[in-house]
Amino acid sequence: MTIDSRVAGLIRDGAFAAFTTLAAGGAPTTQMMWVDHDDEHILINTEIGRAKYRHVQDDPRVVVLIPDPADPYRYAEIRGRVVDEVAGRTARDHIDVLSERYFGRPYDPDAIGTERVQLKIAPDRVHLHGFER
Amino acid sequence: MTIDSRVAGLIRDGAFAAFTTLAAGGAPTTQMMWVDHDDEHILINTEIGRAKYRHVQDDPRVVVLIPDPADPYRYAEIRGRVVDEVAGRTARDHIDVLSERYFGRPYDPDAIGTERVQLKIAPDRVHLHGFER
Repeated sequence: MTIDSRVAGLIRDGAFAAFTTLAAGGAPTTQMMWVDHDDEHILINTEIGRAKYRHVQDDPRVVVLIPDPADPYRYAEIRGRVVDEVAGRTARDHIDVLSERYFGRPYDPDAIGTERVQLKIAPDRVHLHGFER
Repeated sequence: MTIDSRVAGLIRDGAFAAFTTLAAGGAPTTQMMWVDHDDEHILINTEIGRAKYRHVQDDPRVVVLIPDPADPYRYAEIRGRVVDEVAGRTARDHIDVLSERYFGRPYDPDAIGTERVQLKIAPDRVHLHGFER
């Protein structure tokens, strides 16, 4: 599924994502995250030492909800699965790209506790709310 | 667990919530919602005909994430369970209270398809991010 241009637009404009994963036992947890995309995936950059990374190893089902910061009635809900992950140089470079977009400077190396990893999420269903107005 | 004053403050100031429920089979879904609280519960007002209402009948575990609209690095994540629900006059009046707060006018009666219901969510864990700054 190609990423919808309206989702891509929200991301390009610097919107954050409410990223939900399932903990052991199936309970949901949500965090606000920087978010990116390629042609067919939503991309989340995290660390291999973080709970959310362990969660998606056990259950790849996630939700990425991207609210338009300029309009609380406009948002994209992407339900999908983590279908791939990329660590190493690609993930390390990607967190700098995100940091430049959201923060205007490279990512603080001292903030990396373990190792960066990029999660590739294939959308199963996309709901776009409030875009008709 | 008493609702934290910082959570109450976000709600009083008109913040929205990313409300996550579990569909049949356990997959998470998220929607942006109006949100309220009483002394010990987060309150979500929905309809008995909506998917999210069916979800919490099957599995009461939810997440309510409330981002500060003025600061994307500040948000409250409340993991909890729907422990009670109230329909009838109380739920109908409550949607007017929410509509007045968020919209400045009573709720449109024609927008009610089935019946309003208020979900009472008891927090199990609350994470406050970015409030130290």
